[in-house]
Amino acid sequence: MPRVSQDHLDARRRQILDGSRSCFARYGYEGATVRRLEEATGLSRGAIFHHFKDKESLFLALAEDDATRMADVVAEQGLVQVMRNLLDASSSPALGADWLGTRLEVSRRLRTDEEFRQRWAQRSEQLTAATRARLQRQAEAGNLRDDIDIDVLTAYLELVLEGLLSHLAMGLPAQHLRPVLDLVEESVRRHRHC
Amino acid sequence: MPRVSQDHLDARRRQILDGSRSCFARYGYEGATVRRLEEATGLSRGAIFHHFKDKESLFLALAEDDATRMADVVAEQGLVQVMRNLLDASSSPALGADWLGTRLEVSRRLRTDEEFRQRWAQRSEQLTAATRARLQRQAEAGNLRDDIDIDVLTAYLELVLEGLLSHLAMGLPAQHLRPVLDLVEESVRRHRHC
Repeated sequence: MPRVSQDHLDARRRQILDGSRSCFARYGYEGATVRRLEEATGLSRGAIFHHFKDKESLFLALAEDDATRMADVVAEQGLVQVMRNLLDASSSPALGADWLGTRLEVSRRLRTDEEFRQRWAQRSEQLTAATRARLQRQAEAGNLRDDIDIDVLTAYLELVLEGLLSHLAMGLPAQHLRPVLDLVEESVRRHRHC
Repeated sequence: MPRVSQDHLDARRRQILDGSRSCFARYGYEGATVRRLEEATGLSRGAIFHHFKDKESLFLALAEDDATRMADVVAEQGLVQVMRNLLDASSSPALGADWLGTRLEVSRRLRTDEEFRQRWAQRSEQLTAATRARLQRQAEAGNLRDDIDIDVLTAYLELVLEGLLSHLAMGLPAQHLRPVLDLVEESVRRHRHC
């Protein structure tokens, strides 16, 4: 019997993550039953839970995967672009609301579950580091205002992101927030008109 | 037997609201049992539920009362000052975290309970109206930037407030957000250095 290769394991893991992402997006965390996860991934529960200890581990792996993608977009286009993408996702019927509901579930558990909080802290540090690094590069390119510390600007952008996530998670209308994001972006930039 | 006067009813209602506010603040919504509400208000459950149909009605009345106070502070000092007050409350052991946890509970129910959503919408409109009116006065006094619509500035400040509430509700450290609030305030003001 041939040994299962690392490439095969990685591909299988990716298949599970991608399938379960759409399942969580469609049904939310509670509604994403094992049966639905089987349908969405095309794999048996045995195969799924060979790779992930339980549904929570799968969900956390997905959150970490999303954080890595988010950090990649931040590195290339900045945190404000991540927020614009979230607005786009929220107005698309296939995405958005359910995922954001899950995100709010995460917020609640942060208050009560110390282990979860620590795992989530790593995820949040990844995004903070990517945001700070992006701002640092913008500063070096002369695009950033230089009268405010980069840590303050980083915390500012993250606070707006938290507001946006909370707003979307509540299912509130959000399209009027586009010019708000323009204002946020402008307020960290060097003011060329001065 | 003398008729109970309206003044007496109002005073009793105020006594219940003030007592239960500290009770909800200390124990959170779930932990604020009827027995604890009795202790905190110094009144029997019969007296309390003569004025409020049930615990939820009491809680909503409290939220509406808080919204009115918030709107009063907004009218006099602006929404950024409300946010600074929230930061102060969060660093005081007697206040803050539990109340904010209750606030997050509210956020969750907004997603699932249509009637609750409508009642909350009124509360949120009150704050929006107070914020917009305050910005309008600041604009007339020449203190506000005039290149961005007041509705956009209002939505901007409210989005930051949502972020702050979410941040505090998660129990995350917040003292580094003071200079962030300064930046927020500055970014809606007229730039005098130009």
